[in-house]
Amino acid sequence: MQVIRRTSYWSQLPSGIHDLLTRNITRGLCWPSWRPSAANVQLSHAGLCATQQRALTIKQLDYRRDDRERVVILGSGWAGYTIARQLNPKKYQAVVVSPRSYFVFTPLLASTSVGTLEHRLALEPVRSKRSNVDYFQGWADGVDFKNKTVTIEEAVADPKQGLAPTGDRHEGETKIERERERVEEAKKGKLFDLSYDKLIITVGCYSQTFGTPGVKEHSFFLKDIGDARKIRNRLLTCFEAAALPTTSDEMRKHLLNFAVVGGGPTGIEFSAELHDIIKEDLAKIYPELIPFHEITVYDVADKVLPMFDEKLARYAVQTFSREGISIKTKHHVQELRTGLPGESVAKEDIKDEHACYTLKIKEEGEIGAGMVVWSTGLMMNPFVARALRQVPELPKTGIECLTSGAGEIKSVQWAVKKDLKTGSVVTDDRLRVKLEAEGEGKSKPQAILKDVYALGDCAILEGTSYPATAQVASQKAEWLAKRLNRGDLDQSRFTWKNLGVMAYIGNWNALFQGGNGGNISGRAAWVLWRGAYLTKSVSLRNKILIPVYWFINWAFGRDISRF
Amino acid sequence: MQVIRRTSYWSQLPSGIHDLLTRNITRGLCWPSWRPSAANVQLSHAGLCATQQRALTIKQLDYRRDDRERVVILGSGWAGYTIARQLNPKKYQAVVVSPRSYFVFTPLLASTSVGTLEHRLALEPVRSKRSNVDYFQGWADGVDFKNKTVTIEEAVADPKQGLAPTGDRHEGETKIERERERVEEAKKGKLFDLSYDKLIITVGCYSQTFGTPGVKEHSFFLKDIGDARKIRNRLLTCFEAAALPTTSDEMRKHLLNFAVVGGGPTGIEFSAELHDIIKEDLAKIYPELIPFHEITVYDVADKVLPMFDEKLARYAVQTFSREGISIKTKHHVQELRTGLPGESVAKEDIKDEHACYTLKIKEEGEIGAGMVVWSTGLMMNPFVARALRQVPELPKTGIECLTSGAGEIKSVQWAVKKDLKTGSVVTDDRLRVKLEAEGEGKSKPQAILKDVYALGDCAILEGTSYPATAQVASQKAEWLAKRLNRGDLDQSRFTWKNLGVMAYIGNWNALFQGGNGGNISGRAAWVLWRGAYLTKSVSLRNKILIPVYWFINWAFGRDISRF
Repeated sequence: MQVIRRTSYWSQLPSGIHDLLTRNITRGLCWPSWRPSAANVQLSHAGLCATQQRALTIKQLDYRRDDRERVVILGSGWAGYTIARQLNPKKYQAVVVSPRSYFVFTPLLASTSVGTLEHRLALEPVRSKRSNVDYFQGWADGVDFKNKTVTIEEAVADPKQGLAPTGDRHEGETKIERERERVEEAKKGKLFDLSYDKLIITVGCYSQTFGTPGVKEHSFFLKDIGDARKIRNRLLTCFEAAALPTTSDEMRKHLLNFAVVGGGPTGIEFSAELHDIIKEDLAKIYPELIPFHEITVYDVADKVLPMFDEKLARYAVQTFSREGISIKTKHHVQELRTGLPGESVAKEDIKDEHACYTLKIKEEGEIGAGMVVWSTGLMMNPFVARALRQVPELPKTGIECLTSGAGEIKSVQWAVKKDLKTGSVVTDDRLRVKLEAEGEGKSKPQAILKDVYALGDCAILEGTSYPATAQVASQKAEWLAKRLNRGDLDQSRFTWKNLGVMAYIGNWNALFQGGNGGNISGRAAWVLWRGAYLTKSVSLRNKILIPVYWFINWAFGRDISRF
Repeated sequence: MQVIRRTSYWSQLPSGIHDLLTRNITRGLCWPSWRPSAANVQLSHAGLCATQQRALTIKQLDYRRDDRERVVILGSGWAGYTIARQLNPKKYQAVVVSPRSYFVFTPLLASTSVGTLEHRLALEPVRSKRSNVDYFQGWADGVDFKNKTVTIEEAVADPKQGLAPTGDRHEGETKIERERERVEEAKKGKLFDLSYDKLIITVGCYSQTFGTPGVKEHSFFLKDIGDARKIRNRLLTCFEAAALPTTSDEMRKHLLNFAVVGGGPTGIEFSAELHDIIKEDLAKIYPELIPFHEITVYDVADKVLPMFDEKLARYAVQTFSREGISIKTKHHVQELRTGLPGESVAKEDIKDEHACYTLKIKEEGEIGAGMVVWSTGLMMNPFVARALRQVPELPKTGIECLTSGAGEIKSVQWAVKKDLKTGSVVTDDRLRVKLEAEGEGKSKPQAILKDVYALGDCAILEGTSYPATAQVASQKAEWLAKRLNRGDLDQSRFTWKNLGVMAYIGNWNALFQGGNGGNISGRAAWVLWRGAYLTKSVSLRNKILIPVYWFINWAFGRDISRF
């Protein structure tokens, strides 16, 4: 509290003095030390606080708000992180709430999972000296549209931090149990409310496992940075375990059998990167183990890379086949468990990390595998499914009816409109959340919830079939940030500009399919692929480090230390 | 097995063809793919295997041995890693056995624990394309000096991998229980024997906790790379948890109170690095939390940095005091537990990572702390204490008696000679392990165990008081490697050349005390400190990356992403 008072006092200083105070805070050179004399401390802290308050109690958040509107952004992915950085800090107080304290540059995840790049090169912390974004680490738990508040469940100590979520955190709890838990959590200080003027929902999706037994527990996903680290570790563990003199040849085959489930760009790019590290590095370090290894991509569909046109997809399949990666389409995974194939019960030594897994495929039976990487698409976020359902009470002025008969609207029970197929939140072409009257019937009354926006993988623009990709999410975020900054939301409508799709397919080859149909494949597409991601990577720090690591790992090989 | 046959066949090819085959393996350019036709595969694999066999069954190890002596090196620290790399591969087959698959460049550990450098920059993998070293991931469990074999317990799946060991893995087991377990493990393939011609024991030491309750369980060590990663994560967790609106000011003080126990170079350097990240980075990201933070170094002795002379140690203390780091000498830690100070029982939510710890100090009572870093010195390795004790049977020709009366020697029960104070293995000045007759008496018969060497922190050269430092370990390793390579062990004796001591004390200041007494402190010593460690870092890869990161983190700040 004392800090606030100091701040309030010092923030009224003329800006010249402010500048002088803050300019003093040069790194490691002339910043007065922390506790020499009281006066010094107050000066330097005041200088800091006045300009750079970012870790705040909610009271402090309110204090710093001035005349600005508070925009609460739920999520720190492509949509949330982009919009938070681009909102004008003079006009809006941007507050990000997300269980992840960083943004993941997802196109580089596959590279970091084998060490072609280091994990941190794909990350940008939400808190930063250079941004004006406030941040709380937590999950959104509920929204009160009438009072314009969000309930946050803090997630600093979440043990699953950094891993792809695959299921509801509160799965299995009844509504009454959850309510009781909420009361408990609020008492413990784990739940708190945050008010907003505008709410931007960018909570993304979870990984889809189709309820396949054992997949949630035993497979490796590739959605967050913790997943990438787990994969890198497991891959090297498999090789090290296979190198033990006591490991049988049969077990070697199991340990070095890597299965990738899902033939979309993520699955294909990961297989390609996996092939690269094995061929370029592990083959030189464990040459005798190479004959035991196998990479297989499974998909239920009859082809992989469905978003690419026939010719490019065929090129990818041919490249894979030449490199010895099997692609098995029309294959169905039925189960994943620990232990050896053929054993009726899973071995008790589940903790034995170098024991293998068994994958049950409908078409092939049981197969031993060292690692199963799962990438079969998206599942709706439980927050969207649960919290954004009925809207019991609406704000007085925060709704815009789209249907005639405004009189009857008041008696209507509104619900957030969802896409029937995916469960995504439906928005209008200004990315505002749509409401729909509950009940049956074709021409239900519809409305727009003002000041509540949804974008990214959890939302869909009504009447379009824009894919759930980073490109769509970031274009929406840039568009919305610009509209809010300019205040011209009413005068514009969002349309997506397809810039094309890319995929790395291994051995310095890639695919590129332009938005207007131009196709490139092979080495040229690879150059384009690297160039595009280097240009798009966010911070200057990473723009420098990424090519450094590309060079270092090309020259010296990937680092295989495992810890 | 098929692989071996292939190898044996192809290794008899004329060397020109070998060269041709191996030269083909240019990275990602013209290596024939893996499984196109049987002939191709055999060719390329044979080429690889013949030149680069490194992942081997023991049979394979024997096969590759040719006329070379096998040198088994237990441990991959300063002594073990150095000697493994320097042994002449034409003369010796070096086989490293260690639970860590990498070497840690320990002087940079404190830097990596706060992100001044990335973790991997302090690591060198034991397996490498550029070295001729064989490796098995395991703990040495016993030695049979008569039959010249070591029993290895594999450690690929060790869940404590990368963390400082603080106690015996088999603590609490009786001898009979352990024997039973060994039989079980051998059956499961977790135990195996490895024969040696020469054995080099460089197993190092464990972290000393003096049996202080709770320290093993709750404190953070700084001896291995996993420790550094844990510290980095915990530090950022403490700040993020303190930034939550629901965290009370009292809890903030606890969470941001960082205690360092032990005033040796490790404790001091860590405190300095911790101070740097807080001042240079966290103060800008969480300005309001800075008044709550505190760094305190505790030591039981009456001064810190005892290995430095009075003047330098005083300079360090003054620098710390100016920077606001407290040093509390003559303080005794009695207990460490989770939960708040004053609570009689530890809270049940131990898993709640952002709950604080309570440190009980004899002189101060209970203190809440966000993290306690423990660095109070070394404890003898249980392998040395247990496995290297009695020597029931000796090799026929592998012993050299030092005492007259060779006749009586045969009836003597030999034991490995240990230093009375530290428990280290005593060696002669050729680093060979000394034996001593068991029993009482002053002038006990003494002998030398030929072909068994001990160096590093687990050994002491008889009659010297060389410190347990990286410098002594690596000088011994270099000396021994040279002697073995030249075969002139009998003509030389090891003496340590004191090259001086260095310590980083924060804010771009360091201490340097030359071996001959020349002292430097402040910025000049810091330049020397960075220069020395850059020069000494092992691989070219890290020599390039370390300055890159020094620059990047100076220019952009340390990365605070937490996952």
